[in-house]
Amino acid sequence: MKQRVFSLLVDNTSGALSRVSGLFSRRGYNIDSLTVGVTADPKFSRMTIVASGDDLTLEQIGKQLEKLVDVRDLKILKTKKSVRRELILVKIRCDKDERQNVITLANIYRGRVVDTGHHSMIIELTGDNSKLEAFLTMLDGYEILELARTGLTGLSRGIEDVTYL
Amino acid sequence: MKQRVFSLLVDNTSGALSRVSGLFSRRGYNIDSLTVGVTADPKFSRMTIVASGDDLTLEQIGKQLEKLVDVRDLKILKTKKSVRRELILVKIRCDKDERQNVITLANIYRGRVVDTGHHSMIIELTGDNSKLEAFLTMLDGYEILELARTGLTGLSRGIEDVTYL
Repeated sequence: MKQRVFSLLVDNTSGALSRVSGLFSRRGYNIDSLTVGVTADPKFSRMTIVASGDDLTLEQIGKQLEKLVDVRDLKILKTKKSVRRELILVKIRCDKDERQNVITLANIYRGRVVDTGHHSMIIELTGDNSKLEAFLTMLDGYEILELARTGLTGLSRGIEDVTYL
Repeated sequence: MKQRVFSLLVDNTSGALSRVSGLFSRRGYNIDSLTVGVTADPKFSRMTIVASGDDLTLEQIGKQLEKLVDVRDLKILKTKKSVRRELILVKIRCDKDERQNVITLANIYRGRVVDTGHHSMIIELTGDNSKLEAFLTMLDGYEILELARTGLTGLSRGIEDVTYL
C-alpha cells in the first residue's frame, strides 16, 4: 500500500465535498484524510486528500477526481517538492506533579500548551505525519483522554507549480 | 446567521464521511468547514464540523447528525469552554528584499517560515478564526499565490466533558 497526496482546487459549493467523498466510498477507495478550506479567492476551495492503495488504484483515483465537475485543478504533492502539515490537539491526563514533564516534552517537539486544568493539559502540535507519530509515541506513559487531528494539508514548494484560475 | 462547532466521534469507516457530507448537501445546510482524523483508538475518528444557519437550522443539524449510525457521540464546542484551532499555509510572492518584512510579520503572529524560494515564501500559522483572518488582512500588500487551510478542529477544556466509549 502506497500513499498519495492529492491537492485539488474545487468550486466552493455545498455539493463538492459530498461528490468527492461519495466517489471514495462508492468505489471503496481508502481515504486516509481529507481537509478542505476556502482559498484567497472565495469562489474556490482547496481540498487535500491522502489516499492509499496500489499504483493502479492511485492512478484511477486521480483520473476519477479529475472528471468531477467541481474539480478545477489537481496536483500530486510529492514529498520532497512540497510542504505538508497537520495540526493535532492532544488532551492528556496529568496532575500538577506531572505538568513540568509534559511541558518539557511539548517543548522538544515545538508544541504549545493551550489549556491547563487541574487534571489535564491540552497540547497543540503541527508537523508532518512522522513528527506527529513520534510525539504520540513519546506520550506512551500518559493517558490520552482526547485527540483531535485536522488531517494533512499542503502546498508545493516555490512558484513553478502555481495554478492561476 | 450563527455558527456552531460540532465535535463528533464516529466509526472509522469509509462511508462515514460520505454520509455526513451527504446529509449537509441533501438538506442544503451550510458547512463552513469539516475536519476528520483518527483518534487514539483507531476504531473511531473525530470529526469537527463548523456549520452556520439560524437557531432552528443549527438545532436540526445536531439532531440529524445524532441519528446517523456512524455517530457515537456529539458535542457542541462552546467558545469559552473549548480550544479551537486551524492550520493554514500561505504562499506569498516575495523577492529577497521583502523577505525580512515577511519574517517580521510571521513572527508577530507566531507563524513559522516553512519554505523559501527565490520568489516566494510559505508561512505556517495556527490559531482560531479571528487570528488567522487578522494575519491574512495584514498580508494585504502581498500577492497570495496559494492558500491551504485545514478547517477548524477543537477539544473541550478540562476533563468534565470527556466521552469514554
